[in-house]
Amino acid sequence: MNKNRLEAFSDGVLAILITIMVLEIKVPHGDQLSDLKGLIPIVLSYILSFIYLGIYWNNHHHMMHTVKSVTGDILWANLHLLFWLSMVPFATAWMGENHFSAMPMAVYGFMLLMSAIAYYILQTRIVKSQGKDSILHKAVGNDLKGKMSPVLYILGIALSLVSPWISGGLYILVAFIWLIPDKRIERVISEH
Amino acid sequence: MNKNRLEAFSDGVLAILITIMVLEIKVPHGDQLSDLKGLIPIVLSYILSFIYLGIYWNNHHHMMHTVKSVTGDILWANLHLLFWLSMVPFATAWMGENHFSAMPMAVYGFMLLMSAIAYYILQTRIVKSQGKDSILHKAVGNDLKGKMSPVLYILGIALSLVSPWISGGLYILVAFIWLIPDKRIERVISEH
Amino acid sequence: MNKNRLEAFSDGVLAILITIMVLEIKVPHGDQLSDLKGLIPIVLSYILSFIYLGIYWNNHHHMMHTVKSVTGDILWANLHLLFWLSMVPFATAWMGENHFSAMPMAVYGFMLLMSAIAYYILQTRIVKSQGKDSILHKAVGNDLKGKMSPVLYILGIALSLVSPWISGGLYILVAFIWLIPDKRIERVISEH
Amino acid sequence: MNKNRLEAFSDGVLAILITIMVLEIKVPHGDQLSDLKGLIPIVLSYILSFIYLGIYWNNHHHMMHTVKSVTGDILWANLHLLFWLSMVPFATAWMGENHFSAMPMAVYGFMLLMSAIAYYILQTRIVKSQGKDSILHKAVGNDLKGKMSPVLYILGIALSLVSPWISGGLYILVAFIWLIPDKRIERVISEH
Repeated sequence: MNKNRLEAFSDGVLAILITIMVLEIKVPHGDQLSDLKGLIPIVLSYILSFIYLGIYWNNHHHMMHTVKSVTGDILWANLHLLFWLSMVPFATAWMGENHFSAMPMAVYGFMLLMSAIAYYILQTRIVKSQGKDSILHKAVGNDLKGKMSPVLYILGIALSLVSPWISGGLYILVAFIWLIPDKRIERVISEH
Repeated sequence: MNKNRLEAFSDGVLAILITIMVLEIKVPHGDQLSDLKGLIPIVLSYILSFIYLGIYWNNHHHMMHTVKSVTGDILWANLHLLFWLSMVPFATAWMGENHFSAMPMAVYGFMLLMSAIAYYILQTRIVKSQGKDSILHKAVGNDLKGKMSPVLYILGIALSLVSPWISGGLYILVAFIWLIPDKRIERVISEH
Repeated sequence: MNKNRLEAFSDGVLAILITIMVLEIKVPHGDQLSDLKGLIPIVLSYILSFIYLGIYWNNHHHMMHTVKSVTGDILWANLHLLFWLSMVPFATAWMGENHFSAMPMAVYGFMLLMSAIAYYILQTRIVKSQGKDSILHKAVGNDLKGKMSPVLYILGIALSLVSPWISGGLYILVAFIWLIPDKRIERVISEH
Repeated sequence: MNKNRLEAFSDGVLAILITIMVLEIKVPHGDQLSDLKGLIPIVLSYILSFIYLGIYWNNHHHMMHTVKSVTGDILWANLHLLFWLSMVPFATAWMGENHFSAMPMAVYGFMLLMSAIAYYILQTRIVKSQGKDSILHKAVGNDLKGKMSPVLYILGIALSLVSPWISGGLYILVAFIWLIPDKRIERVISEH
């Protein structure tokens, strides 16, 4: 079974998710610059989610590169990841429309947390199907980023009740951690 | 005629169908957790349809793997399947918004039934175009799952008037039957 | 310049166009079967446009099969075709919501006419770039279907003022003419 | 790392962007030809943006053709470009619904400007990763079009306060400049 269709399907879903978020930026009635002011939180939350989905697409791209054969396990773990990512546009819109208030911030963090867990499950399935000597297993190593992210998300969810701004700061922090290009897989591949 | 574009087009349509269902999860006005309560039936019906479309994509993926040449017959049988699958988001939304009441449950079952029939027609066309010795013909065998599903859907449609919960249970049951990975095609392929 | 991306992009646009028409089938408020009655014209017009876009995808698939190199001319002729096809969902919705009344029927026919003209231009560009000995040129031959369709569309547009049902009948007729699989290209290819 | 998924993802996003703009052409309530009159500015702005996104897809296609290996830099520069292009449908709708009044015209020009800058950054990253002897570097040459466009956009933004029609004229002018097929890359490729 080849991985091309898995990649194509995932790319398709991710491309649609990243784009339908734009539909939430509703055209205002007036034609003055000030009429756009109400859209600022919507656009800010769109930017954050755009970056997150970009990171997932990027990492998915890298991880799939190491896959040789796609098993049923991997296929469903991948669909599971896509399911949680498909909830991101909803959480993004709810967060933006409520100007980053407590509960929407917590729910947004929850969607990020579940996506991270789903990504971890997918990674585990791939490593399992390919053995401990696989490129992915070596590349991921102790997977510091992968372990830190859920902790920061949980912190963000819990602290949303104290201050949604702390949650927002934590979600941005995790995005930055992942934006630093993940050289691990590239390095291990080039060593082979 | 190559099958790549058929797969790419089908993947595209399935990726869009699976994703536009999210647009039905409308952002609530309030920003409290309790404001999300009204969305629970919408989300539950989304999950069921996500799994169903995932199963169709998965099985389509397997079945197309055995196809060597695409005839006009196969092409239109494939479009016919995509047509019925394209009605699933509508039936899903109607079911979710009416909290799984009788008629929407029956219509949802009807869409699943028609999709199953369309899938069966596509399978038959492929087997026909490739002869009785084809991988697909051997792999499908007596096709127990394929024969059971429509019976269970019809049962679900009929019993929706008695109790929509029984219908729901039956649709979930069929999904579970198909979620068990279909080793048939994989096994027959690896035997060759 | 390779044609893969041209095909992928066209497939993407066609897959989206065929699917967003479903968004026009708005979920009714009631949960009775009778609440779906108002949707019948919308669904009928969706079916007709689904078949038309399916035909265009199918023929595009065949025609591109004969293309060796993509010139700037072909690229823009292709985008021009996609533009007119992108107007079909709008015309479909207007026609369905107005229960096939005169003007929407004429506008629907106009979009089909412009799409047919755009398809013809694309075909001409491909033949021109590949010479009179090309597979496509031989396959298309005197192109009876291609010449009849615009005439029938124009007839449909003109007669919509007399009776929209005649227009509808003509549009269905053209769809049937094209549904008969176009063996021309397949035959000429297999002769080579 | 291969560039296929980068192209596929970009094609997907561009295909969706070009198509969701159609959703902004809302079906009018009446069924007379005069009921479509209100849609004229919406359709005109759709046509302009369709051409712009077509140009970007076309040029992206050409540029990526010269890329051999995709680095993290290129990947994110590409996502950055897609982000600004994803704002075009919003700006298009705002412009169309306000009948090309001053502020929407300025904002539309701003989105075009940012897209042009993002495209320039992507081009620079690709040249940087491939050296001064690369095909792209030679092909782009002094990049007159690439340098003229931002100047014309800025002029368009500034002059929107004087007359939105001048802005519109400038945006159409830039589109025409780019519509003239960019032979540079094709020529340099064929020389190799």
